[in-house]
Amino acid sequence: MYLEGTYSEIYPDVSLDAAGMKRLFKQFSFPGGIGSHCTPELPGSIHEGGELGYSISHAFGAAFDNPDLIVTVAVGDGEAETGPLATSWHSSKFINPIRDGAVLPILHLNGYKINNPTLLSRIPHEELEALFIGYGGKPYFVEGSDPTLMHQTMAEVMENCIKDIRAHQNEARTSGKASRVHWPMIILRSPKGWTGPKEVNGNKVEGFWRAHQVPLTGVVSDTEQFTMLDQWLKSYQPDRLFDKTGRLIPELEALAPKGSRRMSANPHANGGLIKRNLRMPDFQSYAARVDKPAQTNAMNTRPLGEMLRDIMRMNHDNFRVFGPDETSSNKLEAIYEVSKKLWLSEYLPEDDNGGELSPDGRVLEMLSEHTLEGWFEGYVLTGRHGFFATYEAFVHVIDSMFNQHAKWLAISEKLSWRAPISSINLLITSTVWRQDHNGFTHQDPGFLDLVVNKNPDVTRIYLPPDVNCLLSTANHCLRSENDINVIVCDKQSHVQYLDMDSAIKHCTKGLGIWSQGQVMIKVMSLMLLW
Amino acid sequence: MYLEGTYSEIYPDVSLDAAGMKRLFKQFSFPGGIGSHCTPELPGSIHEGGELGYSISHAFGAAFDNPDLIVTVAVGDGEAETGPLATSWHSSKFINPIRDGAVLPILHLNGYKINNPTLLSRIPHEELEALFIGYGGKPYFVEGSDPTLMHQTMAEVMENCIKDIRAHQNEARTSGKASRVHWPMIILRSPKGWTGPKEVNGNKVEGFWRAHQVPLTGVVSDTEQFTMLDQWLKSYQPDRLFDKTGRLIPELEALAPKGSRRMSANPHANGGLIKRNLRMPDFQSYAARVDKPAQTNAMNTRPLGEMLRDIMRMNHDNFRVFGPDETSSNKLEAIYEVSKKLWLSEYLPEDDNGGELSPDGRVLEMLSEHTLEGWFEGYVLTGRHGFFATYEAFVHVIDSMFNQHAKWLAISEKLSWRAPISSINLLITSTVWRQDHNGFTHQDPGFLDLVVNKNPDVTRIYLPPDVNCLLSTANHCLRSENDINVIVCDKQSHVQYLDMDSAIKHCTKGLGIWSQGQVMIKVMSLMLLW
Repeated sequence: MYLEGTYSEIYPDVSLDAAGMKRLFKQFSFPGGIGSHCTPELPGSIHEGGELGYSISHAFGAAFDNPDLIVTVAVGDGEAETGPLATSWHSSKFINPIRDGAVLPILHLNGYKINNPTLLSRIPHEELEALFIGYGGKPYFVEGSDPTLMHQTMAEVMENCIKDIRAHQNEARTSGKASRVHWPMIILRSPKGWTGPKEVNGNKVEGFWRAHQVPLTGVVSDTEQFTMLDQWLKSYQPDRLFDKTGRLIPELEALAPKGSRRMSANPHANGGLIKRNLRMPDFQSYAARVDKPAQTNAMNTRPLGEMLRDIMRMNHDNFRVFGPDETSSNKLEAIYEVSKKLWLSEYLPEDDNGGELSPDGRVLEMLSEHTLEGWFEGYVLTGRHGFFATYEAFVHVIDSMFNQHAKWLAISEKLSWRAPISSINLLITSTVWRQDHNGFTHQDPGFLDLVVNKNPDVTRIYLPPDVNCLLSTANHCLRSENDINVIVCDKQSHVQYLDMDSAIKHCTKGLGIWSQGQVMIKVMSLMLLW
Repeated sequence: MYLEGTYSEIYPDVSLDAAGMKRLFKQFSFPGGIGSHCTPELPGSIHEGGELGYSISHAFGAAFDNPDLIVTVAVGDGEAETGPLATSWHSSKFINPIRDGAVLPILHLNGYKINNPTLLSRIPHEELEALFIGYGGKPYFVEGSDPTLMHQTMAEVMENCIKDIRAHQNEARTSGKASRVHWPMIILRSPKGWTGPKEVNGNKVEGFWRAHQVPLTGVVSDTEQFTMLDQWLKSYQPDRLFDKTGRLIPELEALAPKGSRRMSANPHANGGLIKRNLRMPDFQSYAARVDKPAQTNAMNTRPLGEMLRDIMRMNHDNFRVFGPDETSSNKLEAIYEVSKKLWLSEYLPEDDNGGELSPDGRVLEMLSEHTLEGWFEGYVLTGRHGFFATYEAFVHVIDSMFNQHAKWLAISEKLSWRAPISSINLLITSTVWRQDHNGFTHQDPGFLDLVVNKNPDVTRIYLPPDVNCLLSTANHCLRSENDINVIVCDKQSHVQYLDMDSAIKHCTKGLGIWSQGQVMIKVMSLMLLW
């Protein structure tokens, strides 16, 4: 990012000279400085490198509905051991080669974590290959340790992969027939701490776990280590790369593309820049008739399903609905009138009767809340919109993803160059009171505890008690930016309280309260009756 | 469980006759009744079926250090889509064929979730096979829909798998050489709703998603559906299976093994029955010398590492330490003097210098908090003990597992027939204040919010500020039962406050408080200085 110039454009203090470079190095992974990995502060990033597990699902979220985009994503062999990452390889089954872009994953086997070898680096080649064929990919291998040879091999393999991707896309786009593709992926095996110190104090460093973090810890007091550091850094031949002021020499600077073609200035990685607002129907047209409070019953989520159906119709390339196999169970199935569930794998004759599957579907269902949330985040981070419905008890599965995305948003809001993105909208159904028959495992209203301790600038809780309040809430949430909206509303038949006018009035009041309150909970519950 | 007689022994109202059977059926998945899946109330269960993702890791936890046990575990193809489950297949790389038992997973592809086909049921056979070979297994297939043929095939395959397992174990145990085994696993493909109604209202039910939950929803008002239900249930020929009183006929009753050999009476599934308490060293012997409060500094977790080392030495077959690649980072590496990290995959020459790996290691490290927690739960649920150290920010990854295990314990405590098991001990290090260099993603003290809203009978929070308080706390936790102990203590150098006598005194006071308090937090923080 720094060498492309983007970083200095945003942070002029980190200038393109020796002084700027010194500042850049000093602040790295330092208290009060910048993180030890990609963070929102870095231009060109949509994926925070801190908590592991979500790189692949973020990449796929970015590729959906971006037919010209190829998203490359590097996955460490440490991250590859996590559960969320392990199932996210199946994301390739959800790429429609006509309307979606492609993801080119690079599984980087450098062999080690902090102190341990990695599982995938210590299994036979055939086993590793079988695993990724089994996941549905077409693995290409780049393996070795000679930098010159490796760069050539990588360039060649990368080119083959891209040709492969384009061939599949061309075939589908020419024929108009979308089917599942065994997309290429790269398995890159190179030494950890590559080109760093080979040995320190008689202990192997390059190509071993000791290369993690700080390979030379004694440079301040140990002359030998200081010399090693000096030699190591000089091995990159900075004199040939930078001029006397510390700026990259012109012929190297010229290698990077210009303007927004630079990787670190890609507008997809600052999604708010390219975001189009949703075209929205009038939410009042789905209103439930309520002549008098508490006289009639209705399923609160059904009219919302109709509204989501029409939003889907009006925004055919920048809106998606996510659910772990529960869109129908949550009474949102009106959506299927406009868009089915995406399915590119094998079909059976019975799918025609109630399967609601289609290669063009825009509803994404997979029994992994992690993958869904990752896709959703990747999708909104690159400037699009979505809606995720899930069961109350099991939303805890993505507690940590919620926390991390809230942190991302809280930092992003302070970065004037990051344009606001659309909100994550979570509808939480099957609430504790209605889960008696499934039992205790299905009962847990505790997600809200997690939400209220987050930054109130980026989190919202809504508890709409009836159809009209839910519609009004959803209308607001789908237009909002840079929030995580948590809407709790059960799907079963419930008493209806407010007619639409009252619902709007109370919602407006609520809006007034919350823009001032510290803990921003909007409770529109039974008290409204009093 | 009911047909084996175990259920009626515990719940005599559900007797072995028509009245008992009626009661059993009526309470199933009914408010105030029993859950829709395995719960703690059911004898023979260690694995709750509610939240999906942990079946395989629980099974491996049960198999560790149980050399004669073969744990069969059925995994639905829905659950198989979750992240925690997807990575837990790698657990087979952690089974030592000499000292551990075996796990025989049965991946059950019935093809559907609530409303959707499953990913793994709709890929080509070769791809499915490659996936499980890639995971390191040896897949056997059982596929079909004719019940008689399928039972025969399943019996035959099961026998082959068990022979396979025993052959590997015999080889390792005879030679004394433990290495990684490609353990067998079964892929069972059978119709969803097998032998249930084929069609209802012209819609396919058997072998389609409609067989999920209640295939005949109109039996009360619809005579045709009532007849279908009648025919379906009679197709099991109850008249030939039960006598006139509703009891299983003697020749069928005789098929089940006797007493604790019944699956539902297996003592491993009521782990407290076979639990041996840990042999414990005197924790005071690891004390830090503190002549005066707040004069010296020490790394709080190092002496704990020495204590854990000696516990490991004294309990060589019923104690394990779990960590996501952070045992050294958390300054607990003294443990390695007694037991290394378990590693059965490929070795490289450099592993001898600082790898700390061994096929006999009792420290389990994998970069999946989900898998570690699942192993740990399976291990204590079958009567053993353990200790899990992880980073504060990333313990949120297992929020939901924490919630569900707390529920399991809360219910279990009310079941007099369930003997108490040892506690889950979670040491949370790398606390928020010491993560400035890694940045915001690595900072989150919020796990305690999750803990305090749980049942105080089964959860504990400890905040020991120094070496001696941590030792005293760990000593208490490792002797405790039926709790989840959350110990927050940073690993870096900190000021030491209390000498051992004061630490014990304050801990004892604390114990007094917490046995009466409602919110059971034991804060032994700076206030102790005043």
